[in-house]
Amino acid sequence: MKVIFNGKLTDMRSVWMDGSKIKFIDQRVLPHALEIFCADAVEEVAFAIKDMVVRGAPAIGATAAFGIAQVKMLQGDINEGAKVLRATRPTAQDLFTAIDYMIKKIEEGMDSKKAAQDYVDGILDKCKKIGEHGEPLIANDQKILTHCNAGALATVDYGTALAPIRSAFHNGKNIFVFVDETRPRLQGARLTAWELLNEGIPHTVIADNAAGLFLQRGDIHLVIVGADRIAKNGDFANKIGTYEKAVLAKENDIPFYVAAPITTFDFSLEDGSSIPIEERGEDEVLLIGNKRMAPAETKAKNPAFDMTPKRYVTAYITENGVFKANELQKLKKHVIA
Amino acid sequence: MKVIFNGKLTDMRSVWMDGSKIKFIDQRVLPHALEIFCADAVEEVAFAIKDMVVRGAPAIGATAAFGIAQVKMLQGDINEGAKVLRATRPTAQDLFTAIDYMIKKIEEGMDSKKAAQDYVDGILDKCKKIGEHGEPLIANDQKILTHCNAGALATVDYGTALAPIRSAFHNGKNIFVFVDETRPRLQGARLTAWELLNEGIPHTVIADNAAGLFLQRGDIHLVIVGADRIAKNGDFANKIGTYEKAVLAKENDIPFYVAAPITTFDFSLEDGSSIPIEERGEDEVLLIGNKRMAPAETKAKNPAFDMTPKRYVTAYITENGVFKANELQKLKKHVIA
Repeated sequence: MKVIFNGKLTDMRSVWMDGSKIKFIDQRVLPHALEIFCADAVEEVAFAIKDMVVRGAPAIGATAAFGIAQVKMLQGDINEGAKVLRATRPTAQDLFTAIDYMIKKIEEGMDSKKAAQDYVDGILDKCKKIGEHGEPLIANDQKILTHCNAGALATVDYGTALAPIRSAFHNGKNIFVFVDETRPRLQGARLTAWELLNEGIPHTVIADNAAGLFLQRGDIHLVIVGADRIAKNGDFANKIGTYEKAVLAKENDIPFYVAAPITTFDFSLEDGSSIPIEERGEDEVLLIGNKRMAPAETKAKNPAFDMTPKRYVTAYITENGVFKANELQKLKKHVIA
Repeated sequence: MKVIFNGKLTDMRSVWMDGSKIKFIDQRVLPHALEIFCADAVEEVAFAIKDMVVRGAPAIGATAAFGIAQVKMLQGDINEGAKVLRATRPTAQDLFTAIDYMIKKIEEGMDSKKAAQDYVDGILDKCKKIGEHGEPLIANDQKILTHCNAGALATVDYGTALAPIRSAFHNGKNIFVFVDETRPRLQGARLTAWELLNEGIPHTVIADNAAGLFLQRGDIHLVIVGADRIAKNGDFANKIGTYEKAVLAKENDIPFYVAAPITTFDFSLEDGSSIPIEERGEDEVLLIGNKRMAPAETKAKNPAFDMTPKRYVTAYITENGVFKANELQKLKKHVIA
């Protein structure tokens, strides 16, 4: 992705490997600072995932792939390393896909760093293809709603939900993006807006509460979101609030698309009811920028994801094409781990 | 409402008259400070409404009633005063109801301060009756979702949406309130949580994005919200995000109630399509607690209200009883201005 770093326009990924070190754009401090976080050992990699230095299912997967490679390069026990990484966050399927892939490749005798780089390069290739397959779904002069950040930051580069949007824009289509601010962590206002601004893609931030009004008014022509885990039947988990937008899109006859690579699919789950939903600390809701909003004694609940049943999804945009829920079985042969 | 002011448990209203001065609990600085804002002239009253020192349709109405009385007491032109006050905020019907009522009463020869106090005492009486009529809708052990603040702060005292909740709690029912934080201005996290805390009513704050998940899971048994304007057919405007919650409640077969006094009804509008929706400044979205969240160049759209069609409303809780949309005509005879 294009970023201004140390005053220079630079092409940068959200996570990469430098020797045995894993480096990240620190997503906690964007958009006001562009800082690089460096993880020298698996505990630091685990911290980076847990504390959301890096977030977004495909980028978490990439981080885990590099993490396993790092353990191997530092002569650690990859099964122990895998255990530490698996315990970081429960919802994103890519974390588990990447770890399983790495263990399989290392057991097959492949060089760990090469295996990780192959995995990550594969993600980028998948994102570009998601962009190509999704681009025709966006017509000229259309306005698109997206929720959270499923852009380059969330996927190493290019994005899932943002991939068709980037492709449409670079193909010269006149488009406009409504960005849900995405409380509590504001990934829309902080991260998606920052990516769109860097690319010059016209956009506006809205409170999550306002999406319904714009859908009702016909100001939004389609919705595209990413996913953290997609069950066999098409039910999927994504950032909290996604379910709300999906219901509102259906209520207003607006197409609702989920963009994700094969690494996000979990064919072991019949439906979405057993996808684990992470509950995060209440301070993410009660404090904003370290300032407490609610009274001191008030508590909060903070589920980080929700589950959207397949009936709200128009289609799934993948690197292998665009599928309806009842066609997802065709993707099973592409599973990589 | 019960508040701790200067270290003492005090009973306080959100707006009252002291001689010719109008005093307010300053809702901009709650819950971290309890400060009194004083308006000596109509321009300051208008500022208090516009800048949301006072907010909530019935409390805006009460403020306007006091405002007209103040103009009269200070020997001003009440029609000029009415013009200034009418131009403050466009959505809440109570503002216009109160001004029309005051002009009528003054023209009839009534003392302006007495007319205003009658209007405001009438609001409190209506809120208590809303509490009595709405209380039976809440069963023991139920959990209620509310959006924004339709409590004592919004209505001078007691509340509209919070009135049945207060009544149920004071009648010994075991209840629990889910409070939408209500971005962008966080009236839920800042004001509703503060009121519930002062009353000892169990509650939790949630991100607006999380309401759908809790409704889907069956963790919420009913939804009660206030209103800023209700059209003849039952379509109503309320704080941005209300429409989203109404759609989600219906989708999950959860009852959705609107609590409002007659002063909020606008029988001149056939339906909700022509209710004016205020657009407020983008900084309410882009900045939180004076700290900018989005990139410096990113813009925001900030509609302050949305319109919920009547088909999502289970019933309307009023001081005259609980009505379905097709029964609202019965209320017309109670209109006071």
